[in-house]
Amino acid sequence: MEILYTKDDFNNFLSRKNLRIPLGFGICRVDYGQKNQDKVLQATFPVINWNENFGSATVFLTALDEVGIKVDSSQSEVVCKITPEFIDSALAKFTPFISETNKEKHKNIQVLLQLKNRNDLKNFKIVFIFKDEPLKSVEATYLKLYAISQKKAELRSLNLNGAFGVLTNVAWSQGKPYELDWLRENEIELKINGTYPNIEAVDKFPRFLQHIIPEDNTRILDSSKVRMGAQLAAGTTVMPGASYINFNAGTTGVSMVEGRISSSAIVGDGSDVGGGASILGVLSGTNGNPISIGTNCLLGANSVCGIPLGDGCIIDAGISILEGTRVTISADEVKKLKEVNEQFETKTVFKGVELAGKNGLHFRQNSETGQIIAFRSRREVKLNEELH
Amino acid sequence: MEILYTKDDFNNFLSRKNLRIPLGFGICRVDYGQKNQDKVLQATFPVINWNENFGSATVFLTALDEVGIKVDSSQSEVVCKITPEFIDSALAKFTPFISETNKEKHKNIQVLLQLKNRNDLKNFKIVFIFKDEPLKSVEATYLKLYAISQKKAELRSLNLNGAFGVLTNVAWSQGKPYELDWLRENEIELKINGTYPNIEAVDKFPRFLQHIIPEDNTRILDSSKVRMGAQLAAGTTVMPGASYINFNAGTTGVSMVEGRISSSAIVGDGSDVGGGASILGVLSGTNGNPISIGTNCLLGANSVCGIPLGDGCIIDAGISILEGTRVTISADEVKKLKEVNEQFETKTVFKGVELAGKNGLHFRQNSETGQIIAFRSRREVKLNEELH
Amino acid sequence: MEILYTKDDFNNFLSRKNLRIPLGFGICRVDYGQKNQDKVLQATFPVINWNENFGSATVFLTALDEVGIKVDSSQSEVVCKITPEFIDSALAKFTPFISETNKEKHKNIQVLLQLKNRNDLKNFKIVFIFKDEPLKSVEATYLKLYAISQKKAELRSLNLNGAFGVLTNVAWSQGKPYELDWLRENEIELKINGTYPNIEAVDKFPRFLQHIIPEDNTRILDSSKVRMGAQLAAGTTVMPGASYINFNAGTTGVSMVEGRISSSAIVGDGSDVGGGASILGVLSGTNGNPISIGTNCLLGANSVCGIPLGDGCIIDAGISILEGTRVTISADEVKKLKEVNEQFETKTVFKGVELAGKNGLHFRQNSETGQIIAFRSRREVKLNEELH
Repeated sequence: MEILYTKDDFNNFLSRKNLRIPLGFGICRVDYGQKNQDKVLQATFPVINWNENFGSATVFLTALDEVGIKVDSSQSEVVCKITPEFIDSALAKFTPFISETNKEKHKNIQVLLQLKNRNDLKNFKIVFIFKDEPLKSVEATYLKLYAISQKKAELRSLNLNGAFGVLTNVAWSQGKPYELDWLRENEIELKINGTYPNIEAVDKFPRFLQHIIPEDNTRILDSSKVRMGAQLAAGTTVMPGASYINFNAGTTGVSMVEGRISSSAIVGDGSDVGGGASILGVLSGTNGNPISIGTNCLLGANSVCGIPLGDGCIIDAGISILEGTRVTISADEVKKLKEVNEQFETKTVFKGVELAGKNGLHFRQNSETGQIIAFRSRREVKLNEELH
Repeated sequence: MEILYTKDDFNNFLSRKNLRIPLGFGICRVDYGQKNQDKVLQATFPVINWNENFGSATVFLTALDEVGIKVDSSQSEVVCKITPEFIDSALAKFTPFISETNKEKHKNIQVLLQLKNRNDLKNFKIVFIFKDEPLKSVEATYLKLYAISQKKAELRSLNLNGAFGVLTNVAWSQGKPYELDWLRENEIELKINGTYPNIEAVDKFPRFLQHIIPEDNTRILDSSKVRMGAQLAAGTTVMPGASYINFNAGTTGVSMVEGRISSSAIVGDGSDVGGGASILGVLSGTNGNPISIGTNCLLGANSVCGIPLGDGCIIDAGISILEGTRVTISADEVKKLKEVNEQFETKTVFKGVELAGKNGLHFRQNSETGQIIAFRSRREVKLNEELH
Repeated sequence: MEILYTKDDFNNFLSRKNLRIPLGFGICRVDYGQKNQDKVLQATFPVINWNENFGSATVFLTALDEVGIKVDSSQSEVVCKITPEFIDSALAKFTPFISETNKEKHKNIQVLLQLKNRNDLKNFKIVFIFKDEPLKSVEATYLKLYAISQKKAELRSLNLNGAFGVLTNVAWSQGKPYELDWLRENEIELKINGTYPNIEAVDKFPRFLQHIIPEDNTRILDSSKVRMGAQLAAGTTVMPGASYINFNAGTTGVSMVEGRISSSAIVGDGSDVGGGASILGVLSGTNGNPISIGTNCLLGANSVCGIPLGDGCIIDAGISILEGTRVTISADEVKKLKEVNEQFETKTVFKGVELAGKNGLHFRQNSETGQIIAFRSRREVKLNEELH
């Protein structure tokens, strides 16, 4: 077991090793099944590393090697058990940093120190993702969901295929997953004893707030409203009425969310999703095109948005703008819209999909004729350099 | 106390007895009031029997008789206390089956075995429903709700009148009911001690997941979204945005539910209820006609459905189809609709109620004229034998 | 320390004292930060006094003075610590009432008696509000929210400015607030130990049901749906689908609430808010005009209401009536509407804002033309004395 006594030793060690650097890695606590006691139901990461802390990766990989645990870095993902020897070996490499480790600093070392004297190491795993490929393990699935929810990976940037196949549908009670089969087998005893758990949800995914601590200015008024794997920019408020943010969906700036952001949808800075508004997802009416909403937009209460929007757009309350919706725009308004869009066709009736991503549109239903119209919104559109 | 030693004895016993067979029965654990300590607030059934297990019913009724507890089977429902003698007597009848009882088999016997050595039998009751009449007791109300939620009785098939009168409005905390009056009287002490319970809901009904274990492929992302007495077919997913499934309502096949299924409404296999969509109930706008949605339908986001739909129908996002909505259908489309409907009138403007239960309709609002139109949906309608 | 032995002594004491009477006061239990141990995160009142119990106010203020705790009644609000001496002094004044104190009677004395032998008095504070001005402390903020939620102050009647600045955004678990920073600093240890709290919400405000006991005929099917500071009249039911009642908003009579009542909005007796319906708030589309809905109204499923309504109005399912919506009313219907409104202009097309507060309107979208129309609803409008 190699011990590194100084920071110089440590730097030499890193440059000497030539290990394949993982995309992400971390140590997690796992919850096993009550019935299938080898089945992992949930993985909780005290710390994740994503495209960062390559020194720690090198230490972990070397320590595993030293204690005889093989990591095949040609695989897309590898999950290993944790042993006391592994912890000792890894800490030996981190020796020069241990004295300066505290609650803010050297989080991977903190994890090792916390694990050092535990006698339940079977409840912990170390996970490496080497390639962003379809998911094969619960632990790697959670690691990717953490990467998105902790904003270390961008929305839509990771391959989440396989997640639904890997995760088990479980009953959640106080953050703990229960196998449905175990509940079935023990229903009589639990109910007679009055110890049947109070189930808050049955789902494959946990909730965002079971794992993620939001920024100080972020509010989620009901934990059921945000699924693990969502991403919420600082300053996002999620109200409890009709809102929902699915995994791989969310906000990239300040936003008041009172409606639904379906999986794959992204809402820009300063854009609000009104009460009951729906942004459709790739599985719900957008022909597989994920929807991005630009900055400074407003989706009115009970509106439905089935196309991407540029900046400064408004959909009036109660209106649905889908790919096939025919939208009438007067010549005057087309002229104004050309000023805030690089390209904007000169015509009067557009299909919704033809307005995808355009800036400065205000969608309304003329209340005297029922016609869906659009005009230049009063919202400022910040022209970026590429425009004009 | 009669003991039955063999399965032959048991069969002879059954044929010898000539007892009125109950529609449903079961042993439940009850929660009493904190203040009104004789008042039953909730009944939890480890096992229910519904139109089945008549042998067990005969055993239970005989055992009650042997220990002097009268069951008047001319009543619609009877609730009895449970005594050690009753348990002994019932187990004596089940003797030939006890050795083969396990977690999967002989659930009524399991219940008796679990109760055998308890010293809190006052917390348990046995309930019989002999006739499906208006409800008189909390225990029978729960038994019927279990029968529906466990799919032993069909939706809308049971008489649930009286349920609101029988059930007490209580505060629920971790699955336990608290009397509001008890909270009021003890508010000062509980709050000063920091022991005031964390209340999750105030309602007469409990939540579905407090009592029912769904199938492995059924998901309920927020337990508040499904009331006890709802029925969810295997493969149903209930999202947490704007959804709700009330008692005596639900799905009969695979369904993605992101909207509201009001009490009395039923959604067929392969039909999805989009985000925020509302299916009206008998108490909310349907003139007392309960709504059934056929198979393979889609209610778009924020749509409202106030009429029954046949198979393969679509209501576009944001559109409301009520009984009085005037729907225009072109002659061409009427012709196509006749192909998938046994009866379909030849005309151009229909009231919503005239389209009730028709197959293959796609409802849309023409976005240039505001007119509500319908046409033949692209969804397949499986013609059943009665059709044509 | 002055002791009052008889009720006559007590009455003399009250008339002798000439203290500034507070608008509201009460003793609360406070939750401190885990990290910032002096920071108050929540205040829980066993009892509040609002424009009432001036005798108790005089006792409390006198007792504080006797034990040397200064209360500057020229301030809008004052928060003081509680000491054993203060409790003894206050109880000495209440001597003639102590023997008749019980669970229903003399609640302020009950609080003192409960506190008498506690050794954690640092967790309790006494709060006075002398003037209804912008909020400065967590304790006074909670006192005002209690006053509204316990119906001791009318909706919109109190100055709640400053509340968002005073309250800390915290993670709520089982009614207990956790500082986000504390969770961050202890995330590793909590997650490794499996003791990370199950977070139900992250918000500045608690939920209504954490503090308030509703009337026996009031139901709230999901506690996340009503924020502390909301007011619910007896007979209100809040369903769990797409509903939400924000602080300083609510109902003044029997109401079925399945939609959103935004902050500042008030719904009258007998009026129902349909599934997914939205009543806009001063921060969401009403140009700062708070919306009141009269009595006996119906907001249909997924409707949006952006103007105040009088009595007996209906907005059809799926329709949005905003300030700028142009509403067509036939001459015949205008005539009928004049009968139930003191003032009603004679014309055909109205802007929504011109119909604000009018009685007996039924709003609908003509499903053949897309025109938004209104006509005299079939609902009775009770003419009050001022009318005609």
